[in-house]
This record gives sequence, C-alpha cells and structure tokens, in this order.
Amino acid sequence: MEILIKNIDVIYSANQEMINNGYIIIKDKLITEVGSGYHEDQEHNKYDQVIDGRGKIALPGLVNCHTHAGMTLLRGYADDLPLNKWLNDKIWPYEAGLNSDDIYWGTMLAIIEMIRTGTTLFADMYFSMDLVAKAVQESGIRAVLSTGLIEANDGRKGLIESLEFSRKWMGGADGRITTMLGPHAPYTCSEGYLREIIDLSNEHNLPVNIHLAETKGEYAEIEKEYGLSPVKYLNNIGLFSRPVVAAHCVYLDDEDIDIMASNQVGVVYNPASNMKLGSGIAPICKMIDKDIKVGIGSDGVSSNNNLDLIEEARLGSYLQKVDKLNPTVMDVHSLLKMLTLSGSRVLQLGDNLGIIAQGNLADIILVNISNNSFYYPHHNNLSNLFYAGSGRDVDTVIINGKIVMNKKNILTIDVEKIYYEVERIIKEK
Amino acid sequence: MEILIKNIDVIYSANQEMINNGYIIIKDKLITEVGSGYHEDQEHNKYDQVIDGRGKIALPGLVNCHTHAGMTLLRGYADDLPLNKWLNDKIWPYEAGLNSDDIYWGTMLAIIEMIRTGTTLFADMYFSMDLVAKAVQESGIRAVLSTGLIEANDGRKGLIESLEFSRKWMGGADGRITTMLGPHAPYTCSEGYLREIIDLSNEHNLPVNIHLAETKGEYAEIEKEYGLSPVKYLNNIGLFSRPVVAAHCVYLDDEDIDIMASNQVGVVYNPASNMKLGSGIAPICKMIDKDIKVGIGSDGVSSNNNLDLIEEARLGSYLQKVDKLNPTVMDVHSLLKMLTLSGSRVLQLGDNLGIIAQGNLADIILVNISNNSFYYPHHNNLSNLFYAGSGRDVDTVIINGKIVMNKKNILTIDVEKIYYEVERIIKEK
Repeated sequence: MEILIKNIDVIYSANQEMINNGYIIIKDKLITEVGSGYHEDQEHNKYDQVIDGRGKIALPGLVNCHTHAGMTLLRGYADDLPLNKWLNDKIWPYEAGLNSDDIYWGTMLAIIEMIRTGTTLFADMYFSMDLVAKAVQESGIRAVLSTGLIEANDGRKGLIESLEFSRKWMGGADGRITTMLGPHAPYTCSEGYLREIIDLSNEHNLPVNIHLAETKGEYAEIEKEYGLSPVKYLNNIGLFSRPVVAAHCVYLDDEDIDIMASNQVGVVYNPASNMKLGSGIAPICKMIDKDIKVGIGSDGVSSNNNLDLIEEARLGSYLQKVDKLNPTVMDVHSLLKMLTLSGSRVLQLGDNLGIIAQGNLADIILVNISNNSFYYPHHNNLSNLFYAGSGRDVDTVIINGKIVMNKKNILTIDVEKIYYEVERIIKEK
Repeated sequence: MEILIKNIDVIYSANQEMINNGYIIIKDKLITEVGSGYHEDQEHNKYDQVIDGRGKIALPGLVNCHTHAGMTLLRGYADDLPLNKWLNDKIWPYEAGLNSDDIYWGTMLAIIEMIRTGTTLFADMYFSMDLVAKAVQESGIRAVLSTGLIEANDGRKGLIESLEFSRKWMGGADGRITTMLGPHAPYTCSEGYLREIIDLSNEHNLPVNIHLAETKGEYAEIEKEYGLSPVKYLNNIGLFSRPVVAAHCVYLDDEDIDIMASNQVGVVYNPASNMKLGSGIAPICKMIDKDIKVGIGSDGVSSNNNLDLIEEARLGSYLQKVDKLNPTVMDVHSLLKMLTLSGSRVLQLGDNLGIIAQGNLADIILVNISNNSFYYPHHNNLSNLFYAGSGRDVDTVIINGKIVMNKKNILTIDVEKIYYEVERIIKEK
C-alpha cells in the first residue's frame, strides 16, 4: 500500500518546521519520503491512493496521554457536582453497572470522537481492557492500554489479569497496541500493593501508568498516612526507578518537580478535568522549564466533556497564561510539541511518532483551513488551529500508514451502529 | 411571513424550562405561539416555511455582550506576546492602517462566524461604525453599536460623530440596531472627557459601553492618578447614574462590587481574553451572588481567537470552578442565562429577547444533536451542548423572525466573497 499526499503544507516537527506546498509518501506503515515542490514520480497510477492536500495542512497525529475511553457512556450524566458526590453517588455506582460489552461500545464512541478530532494515539486506563483492545484493533487507532487497578476491587486477581492482558496484547493490532501496568492512584493502592506492581513492572518490563497528586484531598491523605507528599512517597518506595506516566500532577512542590525531572517521569496535563472538577492548576510551566516530558490528556469525558485535543491544548495554554498573568507562556510551539512528540515520549514510544520524517511511523492528520471562517485571515494557520480552530477541522486521518478517515468519513467504523448501541445501553440502565 | 418549527424540543427560558416535542410559530418579527405536541393547524400550506425540528433542540439566540468585530482581520496576527508589546507594537499600528472598507469586510467575517455559531445579537465597540452598521443591516444579525472613543485620537470630533451615528442608526435595520456611547476606558479618556460623555448620555438618552478594570496595570494607573479604584473613580464622577455596560471587570474589591450592584451596572465576562492576555480572573461568582446582571463577551478575536460563545461559556465556567476549587459554581443553568436573558438585559434590551415566549422577538437557534458524537449519550443535551459541544453544532438561525441560516447555510451573506476580500486586504497590507 503506497500513498502520495501532494500539494500539501507540512508542519513536520514539533519545532513548527514547515514545508510549503510539498509532498509526503507513505509505504505500508512508514513515511518513506517528505519533500518540497512537485515529486518527479507524481503520476496517479504509481500510487494506490493519491490525496490532494490543497487547502489543508499536514501535522503529526495528535496524542492523548490520559483518558478513560469507556467513560464516554457517562458524558453529561453528572455535571456541576461536588467531587465526592460526583464519584461516590454517581460515577462509581453507574460504572459498577457496566458490563464488558457496554465498555466496548462506549470505547468505540470515544474512538469515533478521537479520530474525528485528529487523535491517532491514546493512553487508556479502565476496565474490561480486552474489549478496549478489540475496539482499538477494529478501529485502526493506536493505543497504550492499562487496566486501572484499585486494590479493594481488583487485588491480586487484577495483577494476574493485567499480566495476562499484556502477554496477549503487547505489540498487537499490527503493532498499534502497547501495554502498561495501571495502579489507579496512591490513595487507592496500598504501599504493599504498589511495591508488588513495581516488582512486576521490572520483571515483565512494563511501564507504569498512574494518577498522581490530582487533588488537595489526595495530598492531605497521603501526607497524613506516610508523612510525605505523594511524589516523595512514591519516590521512596521506588516507583520512579521504573518508566512512569503520571496523570494530573497538580499538587507538586519544587522538590517534587526535581524528583520528577531527575527520574524522567512522564507527566500528563489534564486542564479541562482539573478545571471542571475544581482540582487545581498544575505547575506545568515549571515542569517544562525543568525539561520534564509533558503530554496532554483529556481525562474521561465525564469530567471534560469531550475528547478534542485542540480545544484541550488551548484550554491548557490559556489556564497557564492567566495563572502566571503572563501571555507569553505555553505558546503555540509548546502546544504542538506536547500534542505530538512529547506525547509519544511520555507514552514511552520514543521519536518514531510525533514527527513527519522519513522512516517514522505514518500517523498523519490533514486539517482543512479553507472555506472555514476560523482560519481567516491566514496570518498564521498553526495559531489559527490552536487558538481559533477545533479538532473538528481535521479532514483526513492516517494511522500506521492506513487511511482511517477520509474527507471526514471514518472508514473503519459503522458510526451509526455505535450511536444506536450507545443509546440502547443508556435506555436499558 | 409565517414560520412553523415542528417536532422540536424547546429550551425556552434561561431557567432551562423545556417543552419536549413541541412547536414554535413565528409571524413577522415575533414569536406568536409556543406549545407542546402537535399543533392543530400543522399543515404545510398554511405557513410560508415549515422547519422540521427532529434531532434538534431550540434555544433563544445567543448574545455576545462585548466584541470588536472588525478585529477579526487581526486573528492570529500577534499571539503569545506581552500585553504592551502586543498592543503598542502590533495591534494599534496594524489598526492604524485599516480603512472603512477593511472594517466592513472584517466585520462581515466576524458576522459569518457569529451566525454560524448561534449568536443573534452582539455588542460592538470599534471605529468606522457606519460600515459596521451596514454589515449588520445586510447580514440580518442584531447589534448594539458604539464608536470606541480614545480621547487622544477621537477628541471632540469623536463625540460629535458618535451622536450623528446614533441619530442615524438608533432603531435602524428594522429595529435590529441600537446604539450606545463608547468611551474606551478610564485610562484612555480623561475625567473631563468622561464627564462630557456622561452629560451627552443624559441628554440623548444613550447608555454607555466601557472597558473597566481589565488589568492590574490599569488599576494601578487609575489609583495613582485619582487615588481610587477604577470603579470608585467612575462612580465618583457619576458614570453609574447612567445605564452602563462594563466589560472585563477583573480587578474589583467587595466595595466595588457593591457599587456595581446598587447601580445596576451590566457586567461582561470575557474569560478567553482575560486568560489569553494574562489579565486575570474576574470575580463573576461574587457578582452573580449580588444579583449583578452578567453577560458573556468574546472580546475581539485577536485576543480570543474565535467568536464561539458556547466555547466561551464553557471556558468561563471552568475558569470559575478551578479558581474557587469548587465544581458546583457557574453551572449549566447560569451559562444558559448569561448567554441569553442576562445578555439581553446587560445590553439594555430587556426581556423581549432571551426567552422563547409568545410576544417576544423571534431570535431562535436550532442545535443539531443527532449523528454528532458530542451529544451521545443523550443523558442531558443542554450539558452536552455547553460542556462537550460547540457553536458549530448550530444548524438554523432565526433573527427578528427571518431565517438567516438554514441547514448551516447562511442565506444573507456571500461567504466566499467575504473570504476572498479578507485575503485581498491582508495581501495588500
């Protein structure tokens, strides 16, 4: 399978390096050539597919570093509530009533929205992960999957199932799936349980995905129990000797940030969720200054309430600007980097993703900047995308060298069937 | 002209009161009937136009209480810069090179985006307002217009032109245009100039539209000059004896808020601009608690960078929630109210707008909630709109009883021509 994208402006790296009116050639899973001007072999019959990029810009596919896709079933179910009431009276009871099939359909609904808005890779932590992996396999998206482990619910059985899941799915779906261990949080897993997970992570060479220092309440609880901040506590028990993805990271002091930096912990910024749940403002600018890898996550849509990463990045930028009373922080450059290359690095997938370069995996999106008021005037189309546009402006999505969405039509999913099944599930609850 | 909207779920008031599967009848400019079920006269041939509302919800048209529409020409021109550099080195020099024709095309571009995203009424403060009024007249939108008066630039001539503009346009465009006086801000107009404007406001019965307490810098400057906070200073010189629309209102103390409340000053919350420019967080929850009328504004798109009020409201809610560390503040109910009824009241247009009720002006939008992932599942479609959706989901826009947009097609504007002219202007600068 060989694809030519011609007449296309390519923003190929997270440094905003750009080719005007160039081309991209994709063969099988990989990008084989990126260049400017007209390619000499640019006849239609040489390629299985030719995409005309006029009026569009190409970017690396976007990376959602933290979500709970199946929670899409709970969108709009419980808004504007206090956090404990939201979780204890609404979210957890509702989730307890969901079966594996429900999770499959909810995940498919999330994947529709992610593909539509340009996400080509997402990190998921939830349950019934076998069905999540099935949805990933069928839909053509790329994912890093972990079972969320809450000790009281999952215990030893959860650990065994997590390892089985990894054995089954690591490298699966044509290389699109990798796996991690997913202890939910320091306040839902005991020190002993976390130590077991650290050992398993070592033994089976699996990174760890965890929620960390999300709320004031969590900070107080951990400090009371262990006499340390959540970060220092996890560092003490050795978690950061392993590759770790830490979501939220709202409540960190300077020492905590230094610990994260020196241990190369990957951090996920979840601005919408942190704002909507009233959690707080993560010290992201400080972390970036210390060269910590920072990606962006949507969190689940019950606390977001959508999966549009362009909007998420904009929100994240505006939040830092107002927090610092400084409009220069978290500029377009840093947003592009967080959503592409840094995202891939945070998820332990390195530099083979996040840059449109020869030899890299072909995860590419085309954004429509023509006949769309949000992109006029064309002073700066990348700024227009991040500060005025939307993930909805994505027109074409290529993942692992396959065209997954073309002219806004998702080719891999029966979208109406998913809407139908989601409505059926909600009616039956 | 008589229009029937049938099979429609109507969210008719800012209290979220709702009719399921009802109808709306519009005759000339007014709503003549709103009811549930099937209307007995529901034959197609009785009405000039019948709209089938299945899969949609109807809401009152949205109100943008503060913008500078012509600034759409500067979208993406100067982002991520310090405030003084942004204004002095970029925005003001660029604006100085704009002529009246440019403002007309820039305003038209803004109106395209406003109509597309469900705004039926906007308050504009800019220059070349005759051309802005022309754009409003042609496009079918409703507007409250004021020339922005900067004393050093506009002086006495600006006052005379403002009055001429009001004489010409107050009540114009079939009643869709009203006017105000627009002193730019307490730091760009002297006490004497403001006192003249207050007198003219009295004499000609015109409300006043002003920027107020937007930045720390402004606060310090006014306090240094007059020994008072901006609000107390304006109160002292008698501005609040007049009907006033005050944009931004970021830096207010409790006493200031009491002054605003007792004088029934209308406040405009501009969250995107306040965040993107690093201005600060307005104490909106406190103001609402004191029964101050609060509407929402986009500000100009060079500091936003779009005109989507749904996104603006969401941003405003999330910002208050994280500022208060409280997810219950500024809920969906208050967002709906700020964007509809309160917006109309802030702009001195009373309760004839902002509620879908018999006898009210027919400004109505239909939002498409079908075959659109952001609205699944349908636990709560109003929450889905405000927390997951976008102004882009608006399908139909009716203003002053006329269908201005139908199935996403704007009927009153040659959209491609506007894009062409905007591109031409930018190339010529």
